Amino acid sequence: MEAGLEPSCREVLEAVRYGKIQSATEAALSVLKAALRCVQRASSAGEARAVLRDFFSEALEARPANALLMNVIRGAILAVRDRLAEGDLEGVRDAFERYYRDTVRSIEEVNEAIARMAVNRIEDGDCVMTYSYSTIVLRALKLAKDEGREVEVYVPESRPGLEGLHTAKELGNYGIPVTLFVDSAIRYLMKEVDKVMIGAEAIAANGAVVSKVGTSLVALAASEARVNVFVLAPTMKFSPETIYGELVELLEKRPESLVSEDKLREVGLRLGEGFGVKVPMFDVTPPEYIDAIITEKGLIAPQAVTFMLREIYGWPFRFAPIRELLG
Amino acid sequence: MEAGLEPSCREVLEAVRYGKIQSATEAALSVLKAALRCVQRASSAGEARAVLRDFFSEALEARPANALLMNVIRGAILAVRDRLAEGDLEGVRDAFERYYRDTVRSIEEVNEAIARMAVNRIEDGDCVMTYSYSTIVLRALKLAKDEGREVEVYVPESRPGLEGLHTAKELGNYGIPVTLFVDSAIRYLMKEVDKVMIGAEAIAANGAVVSKVGTSLVALAASEARVNVFVLAPTMKFSPETIYGELVELLEKRPESLVSEDKLREVGLRLGEGFGVKVPMFDVTPPEYIDAIITEKGLIAPQAVTFMLREIYGWPFRFAPIRELLG
Amino acid sequence: MEAGLEPSCREVLEAVRYGKIQSATEAALSVLKAALRCVQRASSAGEARAVLRDFFSEALEARPANALLMNVIRGAILAVRDRLAEGDLEGVRDAFERYYRDTVRSIEEVNEAIARMAVNRIEDGDCVMTYSYSTIVLRALKLAKDEGREVEVYVPESRPGLEGLHTAKELGNYGIPVTLFVDSAIRYLMKEVDKVMIGAEAIAANGAVVSKVGTSLVALAASEARVNVFVLAPTMKFSPETIYGELVELLEKRPESLVSEDKLREVGLRLGEGFGVKVPMFDVTPPEYIDAIITEKGLIAPQAVTFMLREIYGWPFRFAPIRELLG
Amino acid sequence: MEAGLEPSCREVLEAVRYGKIQSATEAALSVLKAALRCVQRASSAGEARAVLRDFFSEALEARPANALLMNVIRGAILAVRDRLAEGDLEGVRDAFERYYRDTVRSIEEVNEAIARMAVNRIEDGDCVMTYSYSTIVLRALKLAKDEGREVEVYVPESRPGLEGLHTAKELGNYGIPVTLFVDSAIRYLMKEVDKVMIGAEAIAANGAVVSKVGTSLVALAASEARVNVFVLAPTMKFSPETIYGELVELLEKRPESLVSEDKLREVGLRLGEGFGVKVPMFDVTPPEYIDAIITEKGLIAPQAVTFMLREIYGWPFRFAPIRELLG
Amino acid sequence: MEAGLEPSCREVLEAVRYGKIQSATEAALSVLKAALRCVQRASSAGEARAVLRDFFSEALEARPANALLMNVIRGAILAVRDRLAEGDLEGVRDAFERYYRDTVRSIEEVNEAIARMAVNRIEDGDCVMTYSYSTIVLRALKLAKDEGREVEVYVPESRPGLEGLHTAKELGNYGIPVTLFVDSAIRYLMKEVDKVMIGAEAIAANGAVVSKVGTSLVALAASEARVNVFVLAPTMKFSPETIYGELVELLEKRPESLVSEDKLREVGLRLGEGFGVKVPMFDVTPPEYIDAIITEKGLIAPQAVTFMLREIYGWPFRFAPIRELLG
Amino acid sequence: MEAGLEPSCREVLEAVRYGKIQSATEAALSVLKAALRCVQRASSAGEARAVLRDFFSEALEARPANALLMNVIRGAILAVRDRLAEGDLEGVRDAFERYYRDTVRSIEEVNEAIARMAVNRIEDGDCVMTYSYSTIVLRALKLAKDEGREVEVYVPESRPGLEGLHTAKELGNYGIPVTLFVDSAIRYLMKEVDKVMIGAEAIAANGAVVSKVGTSLVALAASEARVNVFVLAPTMKFSPETIYGELVELLEKRPESLVSEDKLREVGLRLGEGFGVKVPMFDVTPPEYIDAIITEKGLIAPQAVTFMLREIYGWPFRFAPIRELLG
Repeated sequence: MEAGLEPSCREVLEAVRYGKIQSATEAALSVLKAALRCVQRASSAGEARAVLRDFFSEALEARPANALLMNVIRGAILAVRDRLAEGDLEGVRDAFERYYRDTVRSIEEVNEAIARMAVNRIEDGDCVMTYSYSTIVLRALKLAKDEGREVEVYVPESRPGLEGLHTAKELGNYGIPVTLFVDSAIRYLMKEVDKVMIGAEAIAANGAVVSKVGTSLVALAASEARVNVFVLAPTMKFSPETIYGELVELLEKRPESLVSEDKLREVGLRLGEGFGVKVPMFDVTPPEYIDAIITEKGLIAPQAVTFMLREIYGWPFRFAPIRELLG
Repeated sequence: MEAGLEPSCREVLEAVRYGKIQSATEAALSVLKAALRCVQRASSAGEARAVLRDFFSEALEARPANALLMNVIRGAILAVRDRLAEGDLEGVRDAFERYYRDTVRSIEEVNEAIARMAVNRIEDGDCVMTYSYSTIVLRALKLAKDEGREVEVYVPESRPGLEGLHTAKELGNYGIPVTLFVDSAIRYLMKEVDKVMIGAEAIAANGAVVSKVGTSLVALAASEARVNVFVLAPTMKFSPETIYGELVELLEKRPESLVSEDKLREVGLRLGEGFGVKVPMFDVTPPEYIDAIITEKGLIAPQAVTFMLREIYGWPFRFAPIRELLG
Repeated sequence: MEAGLEPSCREVLEAVRYGKIQSATEAALSVLKAALRCVQRASSAGEARAVLRDFFSEALEARPANALLMNVIRGAILAVRDRLAEGDLEGVRDAFERYYRDTVRSIEEVNEAIARMAVNRIEDGDCVMTYSYSTIVLRALKLAKDEGREVEVYVPESRPGLEGLHTAKELGNYGIPVTLFVDSAIRYLMKEVDKVMIGAEAIAANGAVVSKVGTSLVALAASEARVNVFVLAPTMKFSPETIYGELVELLEKRPESLVSEDKLREVGLRLGEGFGVKVPMFDVTPPEYIDAIITEKGLIAPQAVTFMLREIYGWPFRFAPIRELLG
Repeated sequence: MEAGLEPSCREVLEAVRYGKIQSATEAALSVLKAALRCVQRASSAGEARAVLRDFFSEALEARPANALLMNVIRGAILAVRDRLAEGDLEGVRDAFERYYRDTVRSIEEVNEAIARMAVNRIEDGDCVMTYSYSTIVLRALKLAKDEGREVEVYVPESRPGLEGLHTAKELGNYGIPVTLFVDSAIRYLMKEVDKVMIGAEAIAANGAVVSKVGTSLVALAASEARVNVFVLAPTMKFSPETIYGELVELLEKRPESLVSEDKLREVGLRLGEGFGVKVPMFDVTPPEYIDAIITEKGLIAPQAVTFMLREIYGWPFRFAPIRELLG
Repeated sequence: MEAGLEPSCREVLEAVRYGKIQSATEAALSVLKAALRCVQRASSAGEARAVLRDFFSEALEARPANALLMNVIRGAILAVRDRLAEGDLEGVRDAFERYYRDTVRSIEEVNEAIARMAVNRIEDGDCVMTYSYSTIVLRALKLAKDEGREVEVYVPESRPGLEGLHTAKELGNYGIPVTLFVDSAIRYLMKEVDKVMIGAEAIAANGAVVSKVGTSLVALAASEARVNVFVLAPTMKFSPETIYGELVELLEKRPESLVSEDKLREVGLRLGEGFGVKVPMFDVTPPEYIDAIITEKGLIAPQAVTFMLREIYGWPFRFAPIRELLG
Repeated sequence: MEAGLEPSCREVLEAVRYGKIQSATEAALSVLKAALRCVQRASSAGEARAVLRDFFSEALEARPANALLMNVIRGAILAVRDRLAEGDLEGVRDAFERYYRDTVRSIEEVNEAIARMAVNRIEDGDCVMTYSYSTIVLRALKLAKDEGREVEVYVPESRPGLEGLHTAKELGNYGIPVTLFVDSAIRYLMKEVDKVMIGAEAIAANGAVVSKVGTSLVALAASEARVNVFVLAPTMKFSPETIYGELVELLEKRPESLVSEDKLREVGLRLGEGFGVKVPMFDVTPPEYIDAIITEKGLIAPQAVTFMLREIYGWPFRFAPIRELLG
């Protein structure tokens, strides 16, 4: 039930669910920002608690694979829990605002650190393929450009969301030459590529990378052509739940997002008995196609994710189970 | 110069060049039919010769990788050459009509034979992935359905031409359940597939298959998932030129066909300095990803194409070099 | 209906169907010999025809993958067809006897030729793994021994038929040291092996080898350990039917042959609802795990089987469809 | 010398040595239970010490690769060492009983935890292949059944011990449909399998898994067919000795266990000069064929075993060298 | 016994045996030329026969893997056999001279044809790695240069003969930029290479290529880096003997050619007990590392060599066994 | 500027730069010893500081990939820093001497520990291939010999430095049989090898091994032949810098070291326009070709290097950035 949520929050949920906001980082920050607005508008601590619980639950359902979102929500609840319990609305607002500012800044810094490390992997004259829209990858490419390295970027359009066009636009703003192409030409054009750099929605304990559907195809074609694949992701995207064998839940989009009904009607196709449409949003790239994950704590092999998880969360794990926190 | 060609021929050239007619078979037959019209409208043998030479030259340039087209044109010229030399317009018309009818029927029969053999590879309950639009593959699937086998088909949309939609439409007419999806989900959905069946634009002497761009990606993902890949193609699509080490020439489409200028403008992108678009029409699937080529002469390993070529064309090759024939 | 067949023929059918006679060569020759007896005992040409038709039909069903059997039966029918038509019983007997003698001798010579070639692949000190019971492989190993090369043989027991024990026995008679082991130790012991040599039930047009179940496991483990796999088989075992895309039919044994009911009862298991037993008799080794097929016409790559088939049967194929011959 | 051991202990040694008790867990617990009996029957602390030293030494020799046994013995000695030194027989008995009860319970809990995690990897409709007899795998499958998931299990007979029959029996008790087959059909039937789940005798520092012979063959065939392989094993089965480069010692059975002498005599084979039999009990599955090891501490990549070992034993290792403990 | 041979012939034998003449083509032509001189100097047909028999026998022993040499010698004997039998010295001289001229010209033409086809595989801007010294590869590279394509060549020194230096020299004469490097850097530098082009000593029936030792290492590194490997060789280098399973005999050089005794003494090493030196001259590149063999009859897959052999020599083979010819 | 350095130091720099001293361990110790001499000869603390700064800077430039050298220099500076600051020349000398002695002894002990572990991987009768000159590998082989195992060693000459000859010499002193061969025969002879054991210049955070050029070729050929590759290296060779994504810098030698100018002139080659020579000193072996790295802390998978680095340096890293230390 989204009954109690106000329109702007519903919009955010829609945007992150159906991929208008594809970037995992932007999705997490949009949800946090919308939650901040809710808290600011709440007239009592009780209302704030109810709204947060509903909104966060919806957000987690809308983007269940987004490990950063999960971690950010966990942090937010821990930040305001005591004030909520005391019924101190002002305290809640203050704490939430502080948490919001700190999180934005910390993500900013971490991404900067990753981009700086990633730049060491870009050599002058490199042709880099990226996929979908990743803020960290864009930052790394900009940095390379700023440091005077000549880089060229190949980017598939990434149907159906066409995030590739936005990536192309952004790179154009930095003055980096871009070539756009259909997703089906990924293997055909891989032979001109020196490196692949991609972002992630989540990273599982076994080193598998959940990302925009098509990423595993790019990684497979890169592996065939012996092109190195680097995943740029903060450790906040590591998914602690998966260490207990939980599977990452992958979403599908509404069929309409694949082809407009107009287009289908034009061809004479109608959804229903005997004609279906599948619109997976994410896929899972197995660790053997990934050469390294570049995190703010250094470059690691995908096989080492388990241990990074323990380093962060201690052992036995000290992270609060999110469903429980939401009461 | 397309000066001397009438509008309907120009349309055919456009359709086969930019892939509105993607099927290699349909492209070859369309060209042949248009040529027949030209011959019928010609007012002298001299005019017929000139028009044929111009039109065929254009057609070969429009679709240089289409081996069937090359073979059909070669046959057509040989069929009318003597009458043309004698200036016998009626004789030219008769010979061309006969050649046209024979070719249509022979292609029909050959495709039927291939489809019948391919059906032996489809088992009850199979989920078959196909790609783009192949008349032979469609026939094989219809046959399987007619024989009472339950088949289900997965088909990517095949951007930018969206031939996948037409394939889905046709299969729907046969009563075969179809699932359509974005090209980037090819690897994600391969795990549900039992077999891949695809057509070809041309088959090179080393067994490599030239086909709609994206085919090599499907074959790569199939190979990774140990799914068998069958190419259905008549020996008329084998390219004799390639035995001498000639490379098959691959075309690219006009950039507009990737994304409408409207769409680009919406995002703020403009073609030019620093922003390019690549729209390859075909790619080459290496022989190691193909389990068998099903021809009207039986099922062969891709490695055996060289010898099939010799069986057909004798040794040393008895095929007339096409550029020479066109005078 | 096996109504008209006499007991000794039924025994032969049983023996070849449930694998008491596992060797494809011995199976074919046993059937031929039993058919000869039938012909000799027939009291009229009409009875001979009826008995042959019934017996051969049963034999083909009992061992449908045995290409040698199929070829031998085809030859036998062609050899007596005219005499049968003329109702000339004596003529039928003479022709059949002659065919039988010729076939036995020709198989003898061909196997000898193959064994001689195979010996060139055995080096002094080699440890060879074989599987099940293959007369040609045994001959090749005996030849190597006779030529003074030190060879050692590793042989799995080959459950459930335990043909490995018979192979071990035979090799012992030649004075070749043998090591016997359970099938599950195939990979464990492969590291001590220099070469694998196996026989075949049939070889398909694409170079795949049909053989006793477990052969593909041996070949897989050999391929992993970079141990060469040689298949020793006369071209009579090549299956011309498969060139038209026919699938080789694989049989399963009766469940009892896996474990005696006593053994099952001892453990408390009973076949039925929820407990099944699978006893495949053959499996298919894909061509990529076979380094070479040694035939009487030389050593060939599995990829070249199609062409060997054409060389033998001409083009279009001149072999008489067996079901038709049997009227 | 087994001189001082009473008959029931000798039986246990026989059972664990020649694989009548194949399960590593059951072997460890049987040894511990028998040791408890010895302690209870001892008439002095001195006798208890002597019996334990002899019995434990024999047990380690009987099953040298069993890391759980090694860890359990180490724990038992540490539990009673002080009392033994004081000559306090009652104290020894009490301490040993407590240790026995604690160990049984702790193994119970750990196995339960692993089974719970493993269940997350079983999807509704899965066909799971297992091998030999593993208590943890059985528990995971029962759990899946109890949770209402439809599972089907394929199990090879596992010659010569035929543990597969016992596994089939147990699964039948749970109401899970089972298919039994000969070991040589492992590759043939792998195409129908969705997942492989196996137990372990020991896990080496480099992630290699020591298990019943044939396990590496199952894993190889699974890897070829892209079927995921999960090893279910508590960290007590990790072998700390191997981190210093010690090799795990693999045993062979007595030849008689392969084939009865009767069977050999029937065929005419006699062990001796030129005829040997190998009956390896265990083999080593290399880490690259294992997708994950599911431990009570979470799911880890085989490459991460080294670090898990350090987490458990600290650095430098704090585990007592077993031979030294036994004085 | 080289007793009867004059010094210049002995020199030729030395040069081809120890690889001063590494090129298989040059070796064959040198032997033929020396044989011509012998024939011209012979004072009787009897002497000519004796000298030819001795010299050719030595030459075959000196270079047993050289299939071209074997074929050329066979042809020479066939050309003069009748005249020798008639004792017609003049006739022998005439026939030999004619055969020599024809062979030189035919090899010339065939190599030219191959080079022309190979040029189609070189694209503008390509970096080609070659190995040792191959006249056909040099010709292809010169042709590419003459046609205006920019090519760059990487060549290992090819120890111990240092043929790489001669290749570098020759390419320098054509104005093609060359980079020379130690053999151990083959993998390190492969990443900068677009194609590999090599010659051959002989090509076996299964498509394996015998060539200067190190060639298989180049092919392996190319295969790893997905760089295409082309072998340029006339069908005269196909070895008909190998179709019967004969193994190609590989030679080793005298140890001195590896390191001068001075160098060894400097370090303090002396050949003998416990210190050996291996100087293999050739190695065998397996067919799976070769993308195509470019012959004068077209580009073929290595798997198709068997059939090319039959096309040339007919079936059953019509080639005269060389040892027999030499009487 | 090497202005201030005395001749013996310059010699050391030359020797380690151009590979006369190829062993990474010997290079590090030579530099340390030369630095000790400098310190002993310095007439003031100020001079000692200046000389150390200059000499260490040069040494790091001469051998930038040598992680051991980097670690040893870091330690030396830390050992004398305080005394230098206080201007206490005697204190500096004492501290440096103590550091030198401790380091020599500690490297000695660590290498011994590694060799002891490595010996467990050598079985009686093994043929081991090594490459270049590694003190630890030599020690492990000597140990194996001393323990009575029969070992045989294959060693390529390792052009251009010919370190293989020195390795052969040393092994000869131990009484171990050695076979020397040209680098290009590495693949040809790999089939006779049971194990590969090599040393390292540095080990990167992702498990890649930097070593003498050609090492990656040995590892590739071993991987193809399924021969295990062990790298023997102390954790002091792990490169902490690489965890931040720093690339290891690889050096090239002066061209003259490849071939003497005399040799080039003899052939007619001259360095310059269109003729270049590449003499890489090191290459990088990817982790997938390495089975295990044997360190003094146990045997680890290459994927585990990151975590070993953290164990050693803590987190966040506590190592002093070397350039900063040198002030």
